[in-house]
Amino acid sequence: MNPDSQQTTPPQPGAWRGPMLFVVAGVATLGLGLLAASIMERRVETKIALQPKTIGQPVVDSANWKDAYPRQYGSYAATEESTSHTKWGGSYPRDLLAEDPNNVILFAGYAFAVDYKQGRGHVHAITDPVETKRTQIKEQPATCWTCKSPDVPRLMQELGSPAAFYAYQDKEGSKGGFNDLKEEVTHPIGCADCHDPVTNGLVITRPALKEGFAAMGKDISKASHQEMRSLVCAQCHVEYYFQPEPKNYLKFPWDKGTNVEDMDAYYDSVGFTDWKHAISKAPMIKMQHPDYEVFTKGIHAANNVSCADCHMPYKTEGGAKFSDHHVRSPLLNIQNSCAVCHRSSEAEIRTRVENIQDKIAEGRKHAEAALAKAHFDVAACMQAGASDEELKAIRTTVRKAQLRWDYVAANNGMGFHAPQECQRVLAMANDLAQEARVSATRLLATKGHLNPVIYPDISTKEAATKVLKAFKDSKDRPDLLGTGKAWPEAAAAPAK
Amino acid sequence: MNPDSQQTTPPQPGAWRGPMLFVVAGVATLGLGLLAASIMERRVETKIALQPKTIGQPVVDSANWKDAYPRQYGSYAATEESTSHTKWGGSYPRDLLAEDPNNVILFAGYAFAVDYKQGRGHVHAITDPVETKRTQIKEQPATCWTCKSPDVPRLMQELGSPAAFYAYQDKEGSKGGFNDLKEEVTHPIGCADCHDPVTNGLVITRPALKEGFAAMGKDISKASHQEMRSLVCAQCHVEYYFQPEPKNYLKFPWDKGTNVEDMDAYYDSVGFTDWKHAISKAPMIKMQHPDYEVFTKGIHAANNVSCADCHMPYKTEGGAKFSDHHVRSPLLNIQNSCAVCHRSSEAEIRTRVENIQDKIAEGRKHAEAALAKAHFDVAACMQAGASDEELKAIRTTVRKAQLRWDYVAANNGMGFHAPQECQRVLAMANDLAQEARVSATRLLATKGHLNPVIYPDISTKEAATKVLKAFKDSKDRPDLLGTGKAWPEAAAAPAK
Repeated sequence: MNPDSQQTTPPQPGAWRGPMLFVVAGVATLGLGLLAASIMERRVETKIALQPKTIGQPVVDSANWKDAYPRQYGSYAATEESTSHTKWGGSYPRDLLAEDPNNVILFAGYAFAVDYKQGRGHVHAITDPVETKRTQIKEQPATCWTCKSPDVPRLMQELGSPAAFYAYQDKEGSKGGFNDLKEEVTHPIGCADCHDPVTNGLVITRPALKEGFAAMGKDISKASHQEMRSLVCAQCHVEYYFQPEPKNYLKFPWDKGTNVEDMDAYYDSVGFTDWKHAISKAPMIKMQHPDYEVFTKGIHAANNVSCADCHMPYKTEGGAKFSDHHVRSPLLNIQNSCAVCHRSSEAEIRTRVENIQDKIAEGRKHAEAALAKAHFDVAACMQAGASDEELKAIRTTVRKAQLRWDYVAANNGMGFHAPQECQRVLAMANDLAQEARVSATRLLATKGHLNPVIYPDISTKEAATKVLKAFKDSKDRPDLLGTGKAWPEAAAAPAK
Repeated sequence: MNPDSQQTTPPQPGAWRGPMLFVVAGVATLGLGLLAASIMERRVETKIALQPKTIGQPVVDSANWKDAYPRQYGSYAATEESTSHTKWGGSYPRDLLAEDPNNVILFAGYAFAVDYKQGRGHVHAITDPVETKRTQIKEQPATCWTCKSPDVPRLMQELGSPAAFYAYQDKEGSKGGFNDLKEEVTHPIGCADCHDPVTNGLVITRPALKEGFAAMGKDISKASHQEMRSLVCAQCHVEYYFQPEPKNYLKFPWDKGTNVEDMDAYYDSVGFTDWKHAISKAPMIKMQHPDYEVFTKGIHAANNVSCADCHMPYKTEGGAKFSDHHVRSPLLNIQNSCAVCHRSSEAEIRTRVENIQDKIAEGRKHAEAALAKAHFDVAACMQAGASDEELKAIRTTVRKAQLRWDYVAANNGMGFHAPQECQRVLAMANDLAQEARVSATRLLATKGHLNPVIYPDISTKEAATKVLKAFKDSKDRPDLLGTGKAWPEAAAAPAK
């Protein structure tokens, strides 16, 4: 035997690889096993979580859902604390007349010129409409309650039909049913507005949305779960109006579609007008909050993202994953909302959103300034003696311009839900308002007035409110022409 | 010994797991090994590919780069075949005057009203400017060649300075240097415009971009490789003008920034005007193609995507990965371009882009119509006897409106590179144009003309060209006021 063979062979480079590989494989397998076990456990948990729970009575009181869904209830209750995101200075709720006094002029003769605040969180849904001056200065129909409480579907059932609810009045001579129902409608927007108390699943509780879909030839009962995560919101976050016949019947103006042009054409086709403008006497439409309509035109909708995905994102507490019912601006919750899909820092996301909103705000400002001037231009024509016949086409243009502006201005999200569409619509609004001004300028000239219209100071809420009051009060109307002469009697009569 | 112990124990459930795991681990390890080997091999290949190659002489001839970079050269050569994407009907190059006859009116008095076609691919960079009527109807300065050929940096060096090139004239009495240099400038945009022939890396060959950065206090030599992948494009795809002093010196109007307002303010500050409008006599600015400026305002730039990422995306042939030098619309190459980041079908991506472009087109249409009318409104004032002094402010407003419209209209991508910004700018353009019209309407009235201006037919290129010709030809100016009287002599004089 060669003694050399007794020598220990030095380890070959890489000889450790075999055992090492085995250890790595072992650790990996253990890890996979634990992961699989965790997944299986989570699936069991989820199945349990998805089983319907029994809800306490009455189900219209959200507190009775608390035991079954403590996390969802807890986050829902947090809507009491809603705040504006920091950009708007923290004053809450925002006074939209003080923030933008043009609103006083644009809504002249309508309750929004008197009180126009940012809506608060869902738990304030009873308090806010009772406290706003809009329901105090004028008796409002029962229909105004439709979106405020789960008591409403209950009342519709008790009264026998939605129509009976919308037309409700409890005493002879009552001019509206809003105050008449104060004692019946007491629970703010809550669980039962969107959830079936038996299956606990999502459900459409308001007839107007179903009817709106049907009018477009769509069957809402075929909506997927993901679609329902937007549609429960669309029960209320839409443009709507109260039909004169059936009395105060709530309807979405969707018969021709949900583009702003479609809704404009619809209102024209039924000859509907919300109010006569106190300054220009134009027949106006107030857009409410066409959030769903705008949202469907945007990129998030195109990618099948639902309202809930951003405004009620999933959240984990302990081992439980649930939808955060503290409905609010995603900008107050970027990490759980936007950042789930968008891999950017919170600061970057915020900047990106605010850049979009700033550009929309700029477009709004242009359109708004043109609209305010257009109302005064028409009034100047009236002061100069122009007839309703002469002003008809101009007033129609102003109506169409403001409807477009309001489609953007009234919708939540500052245009973020569909920036391209909102800018398109604002551009139209501006263009139409300016076209009205060109025509008004020419009409004014035919009446012998060649100087620029003297626009009153509307730079603050107080100043604008003073101007509005002067217009309502026939004898104090501002002298827009600078002639020093009194207004003709017909033109000075109040708008209503 | 208990005979039972001799019995074969039946396999326990799951007893196969041990050997199976070992096999799986083995296969996985083999796979990882192969992957690692492939990665190492690719890295070696890449290192070799990145080593500078020797380029044949003269380097201004792109064919001399072919041996070293056959794939890049081959794709570059394909720019000969560029086509518009299908939406524009396949006519190529698009005639932008026929497609949109408003252009004839908006550029009245400027060469773009005579010939305005879509630019073709890079290999046509010599043919296109020679063939366009824009360089034929008027002698153009040598500066016009700046972006057309790698012969330009060579000539700047041979002539001793960029200034000497810009001011070049080869004979006494020549009114421009463009034709004078035809024999010197013969190689279309190619390799040497963006690549250093020694290092083969990206390089800025044009002084105007360096100077533009310097004017904003930025040092372009500090740009990262990713930034360079946009900046080589920004040498030409920008707004620029020729300074009167130093003679025809190429300058980007970026001293105050690259927002449209910044450039507007810059041009005002230096009192520059491209031409006097043939219809309104307004002092106009032609925006060229502010692609880089617009791009930097968009979401792709915000995410550090470069021009080359979308317009020259990476491509693999055999084992080699290279940048596709067939520069073109990503819509002609969605799979390699957009789809690398955006996980949607080609059809979805196309629809999304076209939706954005359609909305921009709508905003453009509004602004354009208002602008065309504004030019005629000013002309109507002239016909009515308004003085230059009376029209000064209105003409300034028209200038500012059209500069904004053109910032969007002239830039490539139909607004896609920064949709929000483009819509913001178009809204301003429209607003300003309409403000000008309100003022013009009032001025017209002070001259005793209360009827609407009679706008001539400009619905086709031919009709619009006829109108333009009539305006240039003092005796045939259209009767915008419908008075049947001849134009006052001063107003009827040609614009130039």
